[in-house]
Amino acid sequence: MTMNHRTPVTVIGLGSMGLALAGAFHDAGHPTTVWNRTPAKAAPLTAEGAVLAPSVAAAVGASPLVITCLTTFDDTRAALAPAAAELTGRALVTLNSGSPAGARETAAWADGLGARFLAGAVKNVPAAVGAPDTLLYYSGDRTVFDEYVTTLEVLGGDTVHLGDEADLAALYEMAVGAMLLPALVGFFQGAAALRSRGLEAAGMVRFAGKWLDMIKSLLPVYAAEIDSGDYTDGASSVNLFLAGAAHDAELTRETGVDTSWTAPLDDLVRRAAEAGHGEHSVAALTEMLKKPRRTV
Amino acid sequence: MTMNHRTPVTVIGLGSMGLALAGAFHDAGHPTTVWNRTPAKAAPLTAEGAVLAPSVAAAVGASPLVITCLTTFDDTRAALAPAAAELTGRALVTLNSGSPAGARETAAWADGLGARFLAGAVKNVPAAVGAPDTLLYYSGDRTVFDEYVTTLEVLGGDTVHLGDEADLAALYEMAVGAMLLPALVGFFQGAAALRSRGLEAAGMVRFAGKWLDMIKSLLPVYAAEIDSGDYTDGASSVNLFLAGAAHDAELTRETGVDTSWTAPLDDLVRRAAEAGHGEHSVAALTEMLKKPRRTV
Repeated sequence: MTMNHRTPVTVIGLGSMGLALAGAFHDAGHPTTVWNRTPAKAAPLTAEGAVLAPSVAAAVGASPLVITCLTTFDDTRAALAPAAAELTGRALVTLNSGSPAGARETAAWADGLGARFLAGAVKNVPAAVGAPDTLLYYSGDRTVFDEYVTTLEVLGGDTVHLGDEADLAALYEMAVGAMLLPALVGFFQGAAALRSRGLEAAGMVRFAGKWLDMIKSLLPVYAAEIDSGDYTDGASSVNLFLAGAAHDAELTRETGVDTSWTAPLDDLVRRAAEAGHGEHSVAALTEMLKKPRRTV
Repeated sequence: MTMNHRTPVTVIGLGSMGLALAGAFHDAGHPTTVWNRTPAKAAPLTAEGAVLAPSVAAAVGASPLVITCLTTFDDTRAALAPAAAELTGRALVTLNSGSPAGARETAAWADGLGARFLAGAVKNVPAAVGAPDTLLYYSGDRTVFDEYVTTLEVLGGDTVHLGDEADLAALYEMAVGAMLLPALVGFFQGAAALRSRGLEAAGMVRFAGKWLDMIKSLLPVYAAEIDSGDYTDGASSVNLFLAGAAHDAELTRETGVDTSWTAPLDDLVRRAAEAGHGEHSVAALTEMLKKPRRTV
């Protein structure tokens, strides 16, 4: 019989992501305790030897490192309320979506209970948990990160601490996540256009993938422009996108696909041109976003 | 003295992309003739030995393969009008943005002149012209593609013929291109959010790049769902995005960044949920885009 020297871990919240997190810890040999409001969700884990705690307080009490994967920060505090006394002295790591304000509120709440707090985000899908290049980032108590980084790396090889302010992970999560739905709907619009012609969406996947690679290659250039505030290198100018805006109506005429969701984007480009950014890099649109319009 | 057996090529239109195309042909040893409305633009090419034709008719007459890189199909036909007689029997390849209708119109026009026609698109930035993985796709006369594919591959190693219908490249161009501006504005919104906190946009580039990789990995799954019409695997469900929609207003409150351009996206998600797609894959949004709304 060998001793298990791996850190015991508790995972609370067994949606598809929570199941993946708990599974990764268990597979890596960490004594793993789980809890979920609907206990049946734990079945795949308990079948493999993970422990289902009878209460959230028992779950928290089982491990020095408690990871929550619930929907929001409000949900997280509500679910942990019955375990408040148990949290004292433990490391609490949240992995959920939420606003920076929610992270700050949860940090203050954890502090009040004497818990050490780290707020993180998994930047990938459940199936990618545990892969060497899967990114997770955390912010908050640096000593928690340093103490448990080896354990946290079980969830993904690219594990980063963003800073001591607990809300940084939520801020980055919102900032980085802002590309997802717009990019996907762009892809869906393209797919709908091909389908209208009787062509398969699968036929554009390779091209769209290369297009995303191209977009990725532009990001460092745009970030440097945004950080310096110098947009005068207009290789992909605002005016170029202004010319492209005319094509949306053509695509609708041609394919019957609804492109009306792009109207505010075209409007943003038009306002940037009117503000004198026509020959500037398209990254100058950032300046327009910094100034919310008063709208009805 | 050695003979040059490489196909002579004419490039018409010397914007930044046209310059890159002509430069690639010249560098690869093709006798290269160029023409531009403003002849001074040709200076970097003539300095290297390319020939600036005195007229567009002379430019077309100089090579069996004529490549245009003008802004639109209308511009292309207008610029080539004085060379109409010279086009007979030659291969004309257009590399510009434009609608499928514009491509069809140009194909009929070229056919009327007895020119063989291929409409293409460069799926990258001028700096990437000539690279082994740079993608260009073409549609139209397959015999032109087969005859000149080795020459066309000078422009990028990933050279594809999409089909005999001349408008397919324009259709794919619109379909694939639909991700660009939305994805970029998503990135700019994130950058503006970080800047509002005094953080550098450069700090999110690595994370945003991995996020794009993740999005890329999802495209084959979504395309298969769209092609089959079966959205019942809801790993990234419409309801998940519905929950995320609430965060936009929070980001505005937190950072002062204008997120109003995302309102139609959130509306699309909401309508999909109302239409019964809540627990379906987010790719079901494609079905909503297929049915344009009557709007004022």
